[in-house]
Amino acid sequence: MDLLDDREALLGRVRAQMHEKRYQHTLGVAESARRLADLHGADPDKAELAGYLHDYCKCWPVEKMREILIRHDMPTELLNGEKELWHAFAGAIVIQTELGVTDPDVLQAVRYHTTGRAGMTLLEKVVCVADYIEPNRNFPGVEEIRALAQQNLDKALAAALGGTIRFLIEQRKTVYPLTLTAYNDLVSNLETLGGNGW
Amino acid sequence: MDLLDDREALLGRVRAQMHEKRYQHTLGVAESARRLADLHGADPDKAELAGYLHDYCKCWPVEKMREILIRHDMPTELLNGEKELWHAFAGAIVIQTELGVTDPDVLQAVRYHTTGRAGMTLLEKVVCVADYIEPNRNFPGVEEIRALAQQNLDKALAAALGGTIRFLIEQRKTVYPLTLTAYNDLVSNLETLGGNGW
Repeated sequence: MDLLDDREALLGRVRAQMHEKRYQHTLGVAESARRLADLHGADPDKAELAGYLHDYCKCWPVEKMREILIRHDMPTELLNGEKELWHAFAGAIVIQTELGVTDPDVLQAVRYHTTGRAGMTLLEKVVCVADYIEPNRNFPGVEEIRALAQQNLDKALAAALGGTIRFLIEQRKTVYPLTLTAYNDLVSNLETLGGNGW
Repeated sequence: MDLLDDREALLGRVRAQMHEKRYQHTLGVAESARRLADLHGADPDKAELAGYLHDYCKCWPVEKMREILIRHDMPTELLNGEKELWHAFAGAIVIQTELGVTDPDVLQAVRYHTTGRAGMTLLEKVVCVADYIEPNRNFPGVEEIRALAQQNLDKALAAALGGTIRFLIEQRKTVYPLTLTAYNDLVSNLETLGGNGW
């Protein structure tokens, strides 16, 4: 976690990539991710670092992200799908090539922070949930997810991803298949542990 | 459509597979499917036949369905997933082996009537929508789907499948991936034709 040794330099680089509101969100995610990591036994430094870096490319021009994704042979499904998801996959590439992040846990946590996936690691769950519940977030249902996150990270994440899928359908939008895979995986495991309705 | 030449014999066999309420639903789906086929240019005889046969195995014991699915090498994903979906895949096998249905359109319409899939045929859409809107159906939102079905089969089906996905998530259940694939496919096509929000 060398990058955390000089937080000021790191945050200067992060801040330069985005507008102020996104930067405040970024600080919130890093703070929430560190707290969730402490609570659920993940590595707090990795969680904080992934929090700072998770939206590194979020405000970049779409064309710049597209170019990076094509250069790194990302799947056609991603390139033809929702552009909203590109920043996560491009971000995982850019923080490696430009900032020298090599820790695979941190890279995966950035890569899957928006879609989720089946078999998410503890750190991926921490960052994904932190992204939903950081203090600046305010959407219907956020308090329920905040409360669940204190008790059970999987329940919090299933509720969060389920809410996203429902929201997208209400907006008549497509749903990225990885998000459903992540949701189904969490629900199957919760059913195994707690039965139907958990 | 030889089976339709002797409706009485066919309906006798169908009736013997299920309880009265399911049989009334079956008659409703056949009637609605024929009407939708007339309206949207599908083959009315195939639609009616698929309607009579779509739930042929619905009331069969789960173990009998499991055995059929295993014997016919159905995917593990189906066998490990929701048993609610088995009757459609088992049904497509049984109406072929026991009733001699060979028409691939009818077989596919039965196979995918519950999950849907990407690239559904017109007949598959007709039967799937008929299953949602037949006169005995009564669930929140059914009137909207009935109204859409008169104008645009794809919009009706996207609304129906989207509603099913939302319902399953509200019930904290898993969602069969084919259903999301079918939903995404319909929404992508509708967006291409009509833009965001269609």
